[in-house]
Amino acid sequence: MINFDEKSMLANGAYIYDQRGHMEAIADQICKEGFDNIFFTSSGGSIAMMNPFVDIINEMSDIPVYSIISADLLLTGHNQLRKNSVAFLASKSGDTKETMEAARYLKERGVRMISVIGKEHSPLEEISDHSVIYKDGRPQELIMYLLIGRILYNKGFFPDYPKFADELKELPAVLVSVRKAADEKAKKYAETYYKEPYNIWVASGNLWPVCYAYAMCVLEESQWIRTKSVSSPEFFHGTLELVEKDVCATLLITEGKTRPLDLRVKGFLEQYTDKFTYFDCAEYAYPGISDEFRWMLSPVVMNAVLQRISKNIEVVTNHSLDIRRYYRTVNY
Amino acid sequence: MINFDEKSMLANGAYIYDQRGHMEAIADQICKEGFDNIFFTSSGGSIAMMNPFVDIINEMSDIPVYSIISADLLLTGHNQLRKNSVAFLASKSGDTKETMEAARYLKERGVRMISVIGKEHSPLEEISDHSVIYKDGRPQELIMYLLIGRILYNKGFFPDYPKFADELKELPAVLVSVRKAADEKAKKYAETYYKEPYNIWVASGNLWPVCYAYAMCVLEESQWIRTKSVSSPEFFHGTLELVEKDVCATLLITEGKTRPLDLRVKGFLEQYTDKFTYFDCAEYAYPGISDEFRWMLSPVVMNAVLQRISKNIEVVTNHSLDIRRYYRTVNY
Repeated sequence: MINFDEKSMLANGAYIYDQRGHMEAIADQICKEGFDNIFFTSSGGSIAMMNPFVDIINEMSDIPVYSIISADLLLTGHNQLRKNSVAFLASKSGDTKETMEAARYLKERGVRMISVIGKEHSPLEEISDHSVIYKDGRPQELIMYLLIGRILYNKGFFPDYPKFADELKELPAVLVSVRKAADEKAKKYAETYYKEPYNIWVASGNLWPVCYAYAMCVLEESQWIRTKSVSSPEFFHGTLELVEKDVCATLLITEGKTRPLDLRVKGFLEQYTDKFTYFDCAEYAYPGISDEFRWMLSPVVMNAVLQRISKNIEVVTNHSLDIRRYYRTVNY
Repeated sequence: MINFDEKSMLANGAYIYDQRGHMEAIADQICKEGFDNIFFTSSGGSIAMMNPFVDIINEMSDIPVYSIISADLLLTGHNQLRKNSVAFLASKSGDTKETMEAARYLKERGVRMISVIGKEHSPLEEISDHSVIYKDGRPQELIMYLLIGRILYNKGFFPDYPKFADELKELPAVLVSVRKAADEKAKKYAETYYKEPYNIWVASGNLWPVCYAYAMCVLEESQWIRTKSVSSPEFFHGTLELVEKDVCATLLITEGKTRPLDLRVKGFLEQYTDKFTYFDCAEYAYPGISDEFRWMLSPVVMNAVLQRISKNIEVVTNHSLDIRRYYRTVNY
């Protein structure tokens, strides 16, 4: 397996899991103080990382939850945002321009902020009420499972959280095993389709943000591959007409409640294109994780699978994932 | 101007406006009964037609408002949906499968439904508490301006609604004049770019749903043109990397609060591609409409502009807007 360092992956996962006490203390304090609703705000891949938790909160609780792109929040506001809201922000660098501006906007309105940040001592950490710093730690979603899971538990919506949180200790190892199981298919996918002039990517529910972000932040931004992403239910309201025998289409299948929508797309694409690939969370073993938690883990598992495409495709295309034409290269 | 029947457009607009009393009575009854929040649910172009009103309600009031694809609602539910919610549904045929299933789901939960329907005597009309039938009437948005505007007025958020509603009588004529003003540019656009192998479409705020739907329901579904749509703030978090001198990019510029996000994209695209076109709502005259209402009309005005692209492009491509490979042609 190319570009794969199992030892550091396990260490990076442990780096986050070791902060479980810190994260649960944040959740406990927020719940003790009380809150009216939860907001997620950031941009690009960072808000997409948090967006599956909109689905999870919606399905498991009656807590009102909203996601809004930071640049939009600054200009339009949001009519449910108030002093007693709690906002989650994420930024790898801790200084993403719109995210910092959103943080100042929230601060002025007295909204409590919990930030998930890569770098220590960033401006975002400085302005936030609470922060979790992950440094080289991965996956970031592990932070969200613990923060959001504990909040849901405290509010009475997730009585099995202690069991879930205990089992999450195995998540880094699960993701290593998923990567190993997925690599051959991912490698073949990268080799077969890296030159496609146009790609359709489809997913639903808690995998839709994963699909959206992978198409935009990896295939487009890092590999300059032309990609249309569309949700499984919406696929049938337009994009399907572009499918022909030689059009490359890729489907991500969730174990969440919207799985039937994905399977409908699968049935269609199998029939109408010869360049169809699907990646299905249900095909992977999650050692140490109870079955009842599997649906929640679809986003983080699928991101591990997709990482194997990325790691293989940059070799096949000889185009490093780090090259940018414009982003943080020119001013705009 | 090709494919343009001014007389019938004015008659179709009047057909809807003449129902103003009926629509205001619906809004009045809903407000008299009271409601906790507003939902929009449907699929594809129908929900996209309603989605700008999420922005309008958010910006003008403190009424909680949610939009959810019908297929998603059926599988995941929504944790803010309750007996005292009000739901808006739209369907041209009045029998769209998922929309009908969503209507039954809402009915079972005692949620009041207001439906915007093309055909008379449809299953959707049958199950709804209130319906507005538009037959050949256009634009559908006119119905939403009157229904939502009156609700906002009744709730104290839109004191100028009576003036707005009076001025809306001019909307059909405004849209005729916009179409005339836009046709030359739209025709040239269609002739110049109809063969592009890949297109980027960008917009923000109350024009984002317009952009999303035009890309998917017209360019993809009706013309089989490969199109990636992305919102103006998100464009800078990935899609920008695909821009090269010969990549076709199209920007829709709103007069709403997110206009600065569009202008940022404009500055970027002007610099980095030679195939850049923008359509700006601010460039058109709206005779009879007060300036303070212009921002609300961006969606319906832009749809009139885009219709001129559609009407010209089907001639240039010799591909009728009505041909489908799959939709309502094969089973899936």
